[in-house]
Amino acid sequence: MKLKVKNINFETGNVKVVVLNSKDAEELGQKAGERVLLKSIGSKSVGVEQLIAILDISYTDSMVAPGEIGIFLDTFKNIENADQIKQISIHPTEAPASFAYIQKKVKGQKLSSEEIYSIINDAVSGHLSQIELATFITAVSINGMDNYEMTALTLAETKSGDFFNFGDDVFDKHSTGGVPGNKVTLIIVPIVAAAGLFIPKSSTRAITSPSGTADSMEVLAPIAFDSEEVEQILSDEKACIIWGGALDISPADNILIEIERPLHMDPVGLMIPSILTKKLSMGVKQLVLDIPCGPGTKFPTPADGKKFALLFKDIAKSVGIIAECALTLAHQPIGHAVGPAIEAKEALTLLRDYSEGPNSLIEKSTDLAGILLEMGGKVERGKGQDMAKEILRSGKAYDKMKQIIKAQGGDPEIKPEDIKLGPHKKEFFATKAGHITDVNNSIINQIAKAAGCPHSKTSGVEIFKKQGARIKEGDLIFRIYSDSGSKLKKAEKIYNSSGGPIILGGMMIERI
Amino acid sequence: MKLKVKNINFETGNVKVVVLNSKDAEELGQKAGERVLLKSIGSKSVGVEQLIAILDISYTDSMVAPGEIGIFLDTFKNIENADQIKQISIHPTEAPASFAYIQKKVKGQKLSSEEIYSIINDAVSGHLSQIELATFITAVSINGMDNYEMTALTLAETKSGDFFNFGDDVFDKHSTGGVPGNKVTLIIVPIVAAAGLFIPKSSTRAITSPSGTADSMEVLAPIAFDSEEVEQILSDEKACIIWGGALDISPADNILIEIERPLHMDPVGLMIPSILTKKLSMGVKQLVLDIPCGPGTKFPTPADGKKFALLFKDIAKSVGIIAECALTLAHQPIGHAVGPAIEAKEALTLLRDYSEGPNSLIEKSTDLAGILLEMGGKVERGKGQDMAKEILRSGKAYDKMKQIIKAQGGDPEIKPEDIKLGPHKKEFFATKAGHITDVNNSIINQIAKAAGCPHSKTSGVEIFKKQGARIKEGDLIFRIYSDSGSKLKKAEKIYNSSGGPIILGGMMIERI
Repeated sequence: MKLKVKNINFETGNVKVVVLNSKDAEELGQKAGERVLLKSIGSKSVGVEQLIAILDISYTDSMVAPGEIGIFLDTFKNIENADQIKQISIHPTEAPASFAYIQKKVKGQKLSSEEIYSIINDAVSGHLSQIELATFITAVSINGMDNYEMTALTLAETKSGDFFNFGDDVFDKHSTGGVPGNKVTLIIVPIVAAAGLFIPKSSTRAITSPSGTADSMEVLAPIAFDSEEVEQILSDEKACIIWGGALDISPADNILIEIERPLHMDPVGLMIPSILTKKLSMGVKQLVLDIPCGPGTKFPTPADGKKFALLFKDIAKSVGIIAECALTLAHQPIGHAVGPAIEAKEALTLLRDYSEGPNSLIEKSTDLAGILLEMGGKVERGKGQDMAKEILRSGKAYDKMKQIIKAQGGDPEIKPEDIKLGPHKKEFFATKAGHITDVNNSIINQIAKAAGCPHSKTSGVEIFKKQGARIKEGDLIFRIYSDSGSKLKKAEKIYNSSGGPIILGGMMIERI
Repeated sequence: MKLKVKNINFETGNVKVVVLNSKDAEELGQKAGERVLLKSIGSKSVGVEQLIAILDISYTDSMVAPGEIGIFLDTFKNIENADQIKQISIHPTEAPASFAYIQKKVKGQKLSSEEIYSIINDAVSGHLSQIELATFITAVSINGMDNYEMTALTLAETKSGDFFNFGDDVFDKHSTGGVPGNKVTLIIVPIVAAAGLFIPKSSTRAITSPSGTADSMEVLAPIAFDSEEVEQILSDEKACIIWGGALDISPADNILIEIERPLHMDPVGLMIPSILTKKLSMGVKQLVLDIPCGPGTKFPTPADGKKFALLFKDIAKSVGIIAECALTLAHQPIGHAVGPAIEAKEALTLLRDYSEGPNSLIEKSTDLAGILLEMGGKVERGKGQDMAKEILRSGKAYDKMKQIIKAQGGDPEIKPEDIKLGPHKKEFFATKAGHITDVNNSIINQIAKAAGCPHSKTSGVEIFKKQGARIKEGDLIFRIYSDSGSKLKKAEKIYNSSGGPIILGGMMIERI
């Protein structure tokens, strides 16, 4: 069938889609979701030997009339002279071989590394539709992936994009997430870099949380760089804290995450390759993995976390990364601040003056940094945390952080006092005396997000009293910052309707 | 966030989708695939108390600029005064409860009938996205559905659309498909209707095969009717052979099929409800199910077919349908003709003159019709096929078919000779003597579809020699009809490159 090209001014995301009028689709015997092979007419080919796209159907002639083929903006994005193609012939064609491999996983069969490569290649080239990828993710969620498959997936995802090689001594940290206020990266990187370890830290923006490491770091310095700029920063400073999203590392992983997120799925079989491919692409050879355990995290109990840790170490080893894992407490936020700017402020305050604390941030950061220092041979086993605390206390980590900020184009003389919050704010006070028995992470996240996090950097929350603290009636216990009065009102409403995230209790469990 | 409405002249199918500019989506903290709640501004609500849609993102301002919300043609289809809505406020909102039930099925848990109703309601109202439905279908494929769940799904799907009530004595036949040339419905319906059984036969067009019952019947009479017209035809003739697609019966089933088809999935947990909801909606109370067994069908062995049959009877009973199942041979086509017009011609030829055969069509049609006659109490058990043959031989079935054709608006005096084929054709002859050891269904289907089936009614194939036939060199064995010379060439190419669908052999298996 020969068709006239009609450009549609709309992007479809990664998947290659073309639109036919329902009459032509019927004539061709094709249904929505099926595949067609496209060839240009009266000129050379459409730029590649063959282009396969997934069919969508228009039931209105005004969108795509009979005799026309609707081409989305991005379907021909990478094709030379695409705008000169006036006429296209269209032919029914089969699903790619990789779809048969997805069906194998549905049937509970193991996939070979070639089969996994094929799925990943077709995902990246737009030859697998969203519902086919959803089927793959669902099948992995239910039927799992064995160590061999996770290894192959990690390598295939890594090959799908750019990757760095910085030699053998390359260190990193990562967290499986789920605990608010976890700004430890902003402390760990300068500590281990001050000790001379090479650490090309790439991080993400918040996905479901009030702030990601990238969001907080962006308060202190630019974070989006291309490969050459990253190499320059690392060649100067041996360390960075950048946003991975500006690099073309592991696009296959990003494509899977785009489907996993709305499905609320994050199966271990995809989670481990997702972490490892990002590290492998950054040239990382030794890694400490922070695994927060507790309600609201991916690992409700330490036993769950341990099982994951042992599996993670195995897969990491098979892709050439030595990993150590730390199960960490996640029952309340790390430190007192949650939100992009307020977390940067808290981290910078600690870097400048160890005595400012807070304790939970010092302990967790130096625990993890200490493991890296031991892995890197900077100190004997068991002495890493002491060394990390000494580096932090001495001001060397602060100096290193200023150099990283400068190398990334920020102002190295930025002070915690310079970091603006609010301007709208609301404080909450204890209505009775007692001591804090619980701090509810989930309510804190809801309040922070209602206040504008992570999009508004200056929004956030400050927790003045944490578990075990004794308080008097009228003590300041909580503060919300927001960039907008109406968002502040929404956040206040959540505080009031939930009874607040900070639970005061005595010793009595129940009065009967 | 308040946004100006921009209408997008494109249909998205069943799913409700709105488009935001990427900058606004970021501000709102929403990602593609997430849900938003829409409210109209400065007028009454958007027509329903709240409208929830799934978010798509535009990265180009020319499609949807910041401050705009792109609304697809069909998102507001059923809303009064939708074109008068100028401004809409948009709010992040959670996935509907039904999505949590889909996640339950992913985890291998059983669903209650309320949970199944909720999934089906949200599928029909466009509140579940395509990838969420793909996840449901994949989870059912892997984790299955028990009898209770299949019963609930059948009832929920039926409630999603219109349904008929013709009282207690309502009969039907259905086939699980997979064998070419299966025009038995065009013989069975007039036989049992001639005996006085009420049979409101609704059928489908071909999905992956060269011809569906609806495609062949359309050669003889119109097949698309609304509910009132169907009731009129049935009130006159007590029988019909119509296309189900023009009725609003079980739209939920159609929505699931639209996702199942491109995924090549047809799990038993959805297949049984899909068959039964269509029958239940047509008011059917007693059913004979034809289950072709063999390579290329859904049931490779009779044992697979039997297992399915027993399960099917159970679920049918629990939704109020008495079902009997017939496992049938599927190793070669039924009769000699494959294609919409040529199958109608073969059926009409047999109805007019029993002695014209073909034998496989007589035997299979009267086997199934006989079971219905026994179920309907028209004849004692074991004598049904004899009665069916007698009705067919007597010409009463032919008379009844003419009445049905007339009632549906066709010409009752249509003769087999009036049915046009081709005009392009190609004949194939035996290149040696021998006898036929195999007729390959899959190659026949490929040839018939290449020749233009099912869209071209006059295209098709004719098989002159079937299994066991003795042939001489030069005997006519196969003929292809096509509406176009170029399609005929493609079909010929498949014949020649495959060695043809008709296999000549001797008794020797192998020469060593």
